[in-house]
Amino acid sequence: MAQENLSAVLHSQGDLRLEDRPIREPGPNEVLLQMHSVGICGSDVHYWQHGRIGDFVLTKPMVLGHEASGRVVKVGSAVKHLKVGDRVAIEPGVPREMDEYFKSGRYNLSPTIFFCATPPDDGNLCRYYTHSANFCYKLPDNVTFEEGALIEPLSVGIHSCRRAGVTLGSTVFICGAGPIGLVCMLVAKAMGASQVIITDLFPERLKMAKELGADFQVTVKRGDEPQQLAKTVGDMLGAPPQITIECTGVESSIQSAIYATRSGGVVVLVGLGSEMASVPLVNAAVREVDIRGTFRYCNTWPMAIAMLASGKVNVKPLVTHRFPLEQVVQAFETTRQGLGIKVMLKCDQNDQNP
Amino acid sequence: MAQENLSAVLHSQGDLRLEDRPIREPGPNEVLLQMHSVGICGSDVHYWQHGRIGDFVLTKPMVLGHEASGRVVKVGSAVKHLKVGDRVAIEPGVPREMDEYFKSGRYNLSPTIFFCATPPDDGNLCRYYTHSANFCYKLPDNVTFEEGALIEPLSVGIHSCRRAGVTLGSTVFICGAGPIGLVCMLVAKAMGASQVIITDLFPERLKMAKELGADFQVTVKRGDEPQQLAKTVGDMLGAPPQITIECTGVESSIQSAIYATRSGGVVVLVGLGSEMASVPLVNAAVREVDIRGTFRYCNTWPMAIAMLASGKVNVKPLVTHRFPLEQVVQAFETTRQGLGIKVMLKCDQNDQNP
Amino acid sequence: MAQENLSAVLHSQGDLRLEDRPIREPGPNEVLLQMHSVGICGSDVHYWQHGRIGDFVLTKPMVLGHEASGRVVKVGSAVKHLKVGDRVAIEPGVPREMDEYFKSGRYNLSPTIFFCATPPDDGNLCRYYTHSANFCYKLPDNVTFEEGALIEPLSVGIHSCRRAGVTLGSTVFICGAGPIGLVCMLVAKAMGASQVIITDLFPERLKMAKELGADFQVTVKRGDEPQQLAKTVGDMLGAPPQITIECTGVESSIQSAIYATRSGGVVVLVGLGSEMASVPLVNAAVREVDIRGTFRYCNTWPMAIAMLASGKVNVKPLVTHRFPLEQVVQAFETTRQGLGIKVMLKCDQNDQNP
Amino acid sequence: MAQENLSAVLHSQGDLRLEDRPIREPGPNEVLLQMHSVGICGSDVHYWQHGRIGDFVLTKPMVLGHEASGRVVKVGSAVKHLKVGDRVAIEPGVPREMDEYFKSGRYNLSPTIFFCATPPDDGNLCRYYTHSANFCYKLPDNVTFEEGALIEPLSVGIHSCRRAGVTLGSTVFICGAGPIGLVCMLVAKAMGASQVIITDLFPERLKMAKELGADFQVTVKRGDEPQQLAKTVGDMLGAPPQITIECTGVESSIQSAIYATRSGGVVVLVGLGSEMASVPLVNAAVREVDIRGTFRYCNTWPMAIAMLASGKVNVKPLVTHRFPLEQVVQAFETTRQGLGIKVMLKCDQNDQNP
Repeated sequence: MAQENLSAVLHSQGDLRLEDRPIREPGPNEVLLQMHSVGICGSDVHYWQHGRIGDFVLTKPMVLGHEASGRVVKVGSAVKHLKVGDRVAIEPGVPREMDEYFKSGRYNLSPTIFFCATPPDDGNLCRYYTHSANFCYKLPDNVTFEEGALIEPLSVGIHSCRRAGVTLGSTVFICGAGPIGLVCMLVAKAMGASQVIITDLFPERLKMAKELGADFQVTVKRGDEPQQLAKTVGDMLGAPPQITIECTGVESSIQSAIYATRSGGVVVLVGLGSEMASVPLVNAAVREVDIRGTFRYCNTWPMAIAMLASGKVNVKPLVTHRFPLEQVVQAFETTRQGLGIKVMLKCDQNDQNP
Repeated sequence: MAQENLSAVLHSQGDLRLEDRPIREPGPNEVLLQMHSVGICGSDVHYWQHGRIGDFVLTKPMVLGHEASGRVVKVGSAVKHLKVGDRVAIEPGVPREMDEYFKSGRYNLSPTIFFCATPPDDGNLCRYYTHSANFCYKLPDNVTFEEGALIEPLSVGIHSCRRAGVTLGSTVFICGAGPIGLVCMLVAKAMGASQVIITDLFPERLKMAKELGADFQVTVKRGDEPQQLAKTVGDMLGAPPQITIECTGVESSIQSAIYATRSGGVVVLVGLGSEMASVPLVNAAVREVDIRGTFRYCNTWPMAIAMLASGKVNVKPLVTHRFPLEQVVQAFETTRQGLGIKVMLKCDQNDQNP
Repeated sequence: MAQENLSAVLHSQGDLRLEDRPIREPGPNEVLLQMHSVGICGSDVHYWQHGRIGDFVLTKPMVLGHEASGRVVKVGSAVKHLKVGDRVAIEPGVPREMDEYFKSGRYNLSPTIFFCATPPDDGNLCRYYTHSANFCYKLPDNVTFEEGALIEPLSVGIHSCRRAGVTLGSTVFICGAGPIGLVCMLVAKAMGASQVIITDLFPERLKMAKELGADFQVTVKRGDEPQQLAKTVGDMLGAPPQITIECTGVESSIQSAIYATRSGGVVVLVGLGSEMASVPLVNAAVREVDIRGTFRYCNTWPMAIAMLASGKVNVKPLVTHRFPLEQVVQAFETTRQGLGIKVMLKCDQNDQNP
Repeated sequence: MAQENLSAVLHSQGDLRLEDRPIREPGPNEVLLQMHSVGICGSDVHYWQHGRIGDFVLTKPMVLGHEASGRVVKVGSAVKHLKVGDRVAIEPGVPREMDEYFKSGRYNLSPTIFFCATPPDDGNLCRYYTHSANFCYKLPDNVTFEEGALIEPLSVGIHSCRRAGVTLGSTVFICGAGPIGLVCMLVAKAMGASQVIITDLFPERLKMAKELGADFQVTVKRGDEPQQLAKTVGDMLGAPPQITIECTGVESSIQSAIYATRSGGVVVLVGLGSEMASVPLVNAAVREVDIRGTFRYCNTWPMAIAMLASGKVNVKPLVTHRFPLEQVVQAFETTRQGLGIKVMLKCDQNDQNP
């Protein structure tokens, strides 16, 4: 292929460049995709700003991007379920080993998994990208490319709500109204939650949360007393929430999450903060409030496509900004400043539609 | 109390009478209720027509009715959570013994449970009725008495969908579009089902199902080949449904339910037919399609109230006919003829509103 | 009854007295028991030494004891499943309200539950004691009174292993080889755990653990590095344990528990320490290591009796000391000093057999 | 390789031949094994006798055998966890596609799975056999080759007991005391079942079951009344069993299984009979007795190895006959006649030890 392949490559902390990269031929079980829409995730920006996230350190140039959709342009010899022209959403994690996690259906925990834009694995913020066909999912005609790209953050919400056990009539407290808090809220409502209460430091985020369906909003301030906030949440709902989804990673917020949750309930940790956290573990233990972490997701794409196709969830309002791939730095800067909710990069020069 | 207590009493097969019954004083843990709305269930009609259901045989006069709501007019000495004037929905099953089922949260299976209008226990199709306060649930202001009464059939749907494991993105096949099939559909959608397909012999029922939200409808005929119907269902959905909720009890329909369900899925039996049924058990077994029965419900009222209060489920369109208690025989006749969906009896002479 | 009722009454911190107490007549659903064997729990000693545990504060004299068995000597009018002469084990927690926890099978979480020897509720370290018949369980002939009394600590082990999800082939790490650590180990083995590794500060406790069936023992020292201990545990087992049961409540031990547990596994908190604990929550979260507390137990007595009757678990070696009720202070002093495993008080003057 | 590869090949119904077959070179993710011990399964004999099992029809010569262990003699280029000389147990099912079943941990349900000795896939009753390395599991030194081969039938027991939810104190009714009934019993006991009752037509099988640990045995006769047998089972246990594992596939036995099981319990179908079965579905449904099928197994080998290595389960007594590969027809004839429990074929000329 002599096609140009403009790619957003992070060379080192702060050094994000657009450059032409070779196009990798698909192996027997792979497909080559012409990328269409790629959302920017907080983690992309974090790598750009800090060159690392925890133990994952950038040591060589890496293509960013993992919230993505595109169109199949070439199909590996063993691929049966996809053909050229199919529009697909890309699941960025592809297990490399058939280990105990993969065999038992929790492949997100496989320590050797390939994952787009987690060092050293390249992402898909580029014109052409080759991926395991088994982790590309055909989009129905009534689901747009951007909805396809949004399946990635939506999957975080699905996995979190599934780990939390959200079901009909659940009352749910969500800490943090950023993009992840919002998708958790959308998913919780779609799973039957009767009441969702959401907190944030910024009133404009809560305004958006309200528009998207949050039943109650609470503006928090740094320094708020966790037990007091927990009480406020319970008072507003009429009873403590059965489930809390913590999306900030902030220690005081995790404390609030535990205090706020009803005995026998669940706190799900989605946001990540500092390695050690001081938390009221006895309070959680004697009330049998379970604390469950989440790491990415597994087995969410088909469910997410079913939801989008049937209109059970509307993620379109999450996209507040769009940039052509050529303006990737400006797009990252927009995300870094916390403007809007989701910034979408348009990788196909001939089709910049949603 | 010198109050009159007009009651719908079934004396024997076909002999349903309105008569004045004594009002029972509430014990320490009971409340006396002025009844407001009582729905007619197929089982009420069945007792009226046949004097029995399976092993439950009418041997002495029994008040009918178990889909009910009313207003508290007297409170037992030990009751704390209710007061005179509270509007409540009544859970008709009250465990009598603290047996293994009750202790482990499945009190519906307790063999000695009291249950309204199951011989020999009286129901609540009357003016005044005394019930365990622990099984009366206060209605919020924005939930009507009729919605309160409809929590009973809704609970069948909740219990069935919960037993089925309906969750986000589930595809659900419901056999039968009678009142129970319809509430199962409403609940399945509220729990996140992406697609619900429903069958019935009668097109007018399917029309109602469509209006209430069913994604696909299939008119079946007696004599349809179960495997062919199963194939039709899978073809319409694009893939076999993960869950089937069988609400007819008809042998051929149970067969269709098994054949239609995706490997690893669940068939829930809600409708009851003849004691023995010939079913493709090997087909179910080798595809690990679980077959799960349902008996009434447990722990559904609080969840149902949360759903109704938050508007997650709209059951109001289910009520198609209303009669004052005085016209109980006419009301039963309406249900017997299969007219409309749900017939509601209005027991309060001064308030016949929904 | 003119019977004397010698009782071990804690009047205030450090002031444990033997005194005659009135015998309470059984109500309709109660039984009067002649107490036979009562084990001393760490919590009994803690109340004796400190007058409180957390928010539970002794404000008036209270009979101690909650690990107990006895013989029925009088039966309430409504009791059907017990008769005079029956030997029973006593479940010390009796829910007072039919709240959401009770109805859903988690009555241990009911905030208003009665619980023997938790202020202000009296325990059963006495000659005669009246209890809810529904929470007295008949012992088969081949289960001794002392085994009956030991069902209480055994229940802590059952509830913990059940919350942990111990099953066939599980590898289990138990922190702390005191009485609770030991029963957790016995139960884990009985549930099919293939390997149990246990830690303690005291080699003599580990020796006992080995005799009772622990596969690996590790002597820890204060100041041990949690991550290093975690590594040692994994190295000894050949792979990190799937389940960790933390029975010490010590912060560094909780840290070790999290670090040691395999991704996707479970840490169960049984031991209670200080209210706030600093723990590696990010480590737990990104590896989806769930943290689950335990509060007492529910629905364990029938299972425990089945185990004891069938010989699946042998708890007899846990009893290392016996004292007649008259020597209660000496017995408490023995437990306080950490001598042996379980001290049993013999309340029946005419039968001091196991 | 110029090595001879004597193989037991079924050419057509009744035509089982020993012949030399080419040795297949291992691909990158495969290993070549020198076979050591291969047990004969009822299904092997069934193919020999009938040329088919249900829809699986022999259409070309096929090597039999799928209960197997051997030694690695050659390793594919991408294999990391095995090396030449390793002794391994072979899981005979290898998923071919990364479909929804594989991704969610239920790969046994994948419709395109490769499975040894299910037409048209060759088995491993031969001298040399090549298999996916990911489905070969290294045996610890203290686990023999024959134990390794027995992991296959043991896996049926594990999968069945896992599907049944056997846990501490479970009471279990097993229909049929053939090899599968016996492994189900061994596994149920290892998972903590307090009582296992087992039935069979043949007293000598029940004698063996008793020796292996069954608590109760019942000799049944053709024509026994299912409800009467169910009553007998409950009477012997003192209460109906919580779990029934049906290993015969006979209609009347399935009926007994349903009638016998306690309300809220589970019937697991392991034995397969005729496609349609007449069963008391209403009885099962109204008592919420779940009916769950089993198809082979998944994720059982590591657990089984852990059990065998730790001595939790002793399968050695199951091997009652041994034959060298050269006497394969005689070995099959022994199984066909129902002599003993398990017949083991020894494929390694230089090592015919267990």
